[in-house]
Amino acid sequence: MERLKSYIRDIPDFPVKGIVFKDITPLLRDPEAIRLACDALAAPFRDRGVTAVCGMEARGFIFGSVLAYLLGVGFVPLRKPGKLPHETESISYQLEYGIATLEIHRDALGPKDRVLMVDDVLATGGTMAASCRLVEKLGAHVVACAFVVELAFLNGRSRLHHEVVSLIQY
Amino acid sequence: MERLKSYIRDIPDFPVKGIVFKDITPLLRDPEAIRLACDALAAPFRDRGVTAVCGMEARGFIFGSVLAYLLGVGFVPLRKPGKLPHETESISYQLEYGIATLEIHRDALGPKDRVLMVDDVLATGGTMAASCRLVEKLGAHVVACAFVVELAFLNGRSRLHHEVVSLIQY
Repeated sequence: MERLKSYIRDIPDFPVKGIVFKDITPLLRDPEAIRLACDALAAPFRDRGVTAVCGMEARGFIFGSVLAYLLGVGFVPLRKPGKLPHETESISYQLEYGIATLEIHRDALGPKDRVLMVDDVLATGGTMAASCRLVEKLGAHVVACAFVVELAFLNGRSRLHHEVVSLIQY
Repeated sequence: MERLKSYIRDIPDFPVKGIVFKDITPLLRDPEAIRLACDALAAPFRDRGVTAVCGMEARGFIFGSVLAYLLGVGFVPLRKPGKLPHETESISYQLEYGIATLEIHRDALGPKDRVLMVDDVLATGGTMAASCRLVEKLGAHVVACAFVVELAFLNGRSRLHHEVVSLIQY
């Protein structure tokens, strides 16, 4: 997957000074790169009994929905507060600056579900760790967490108590 | 596509009193329904020379990315202000309450592009009309606007000067 690296663009000082942001939009824009990334992310999970894919708002929706399609399962969006219209379960978690909250529909998952969690970039792992806890609140089992890009130097993987798969590592 | 209607849930008084929100999350959650919806949305555009699919943050990412995959083209996200890290073009437009803005990366599209615009629900059409203008600012050609659900009684279609395809109409 090293060839996918050429589609990741470094943006210095975004969103704040000192951070080098990994911009995946060139990968999304290239027909072969997006197809390769989706196929490669789905491949390890074809025979794992996955019953649903969860993606986090907003960029997690992009790869999450394609993976759901490829695995032949449903897609469950994890959203920011107030966006999901039905009864929700929620979780709040600490970010570098302040508190973030994610919500999920209560009827979206249950104890029989085996869930693949998907996001585009694994950084500190805070959002994904909270997302896993939220899914587990509904009694579902997290099979693995899948990312296109992993910022391995931030060691976010150590905060995730599940299998982690990533296509590109820095 | 009438059978897809059974996967759309009515939520009264969301997001504000008097509005009946069409919740598509049951459709996303069902493996056959999401697959049928994606396949049916992609089918009319397989031989139309589409070079990219645009989806609007956030729910437009869900179907947009799958359609890009199915059509074998790239995906271009249209995002809320400050989210896209590279040089952007933007457009502001009137909503029922206040002004909204969408951004696109300037290098995402050009005059050779033929773009399929995708969102989940066509209501008044304001967001999609602005999105089309934004894509056209970059010189690209809008082939069509595709939606899973169309609230036909709001006549949003009349604000879109392009072909409109929807799977479910109310």
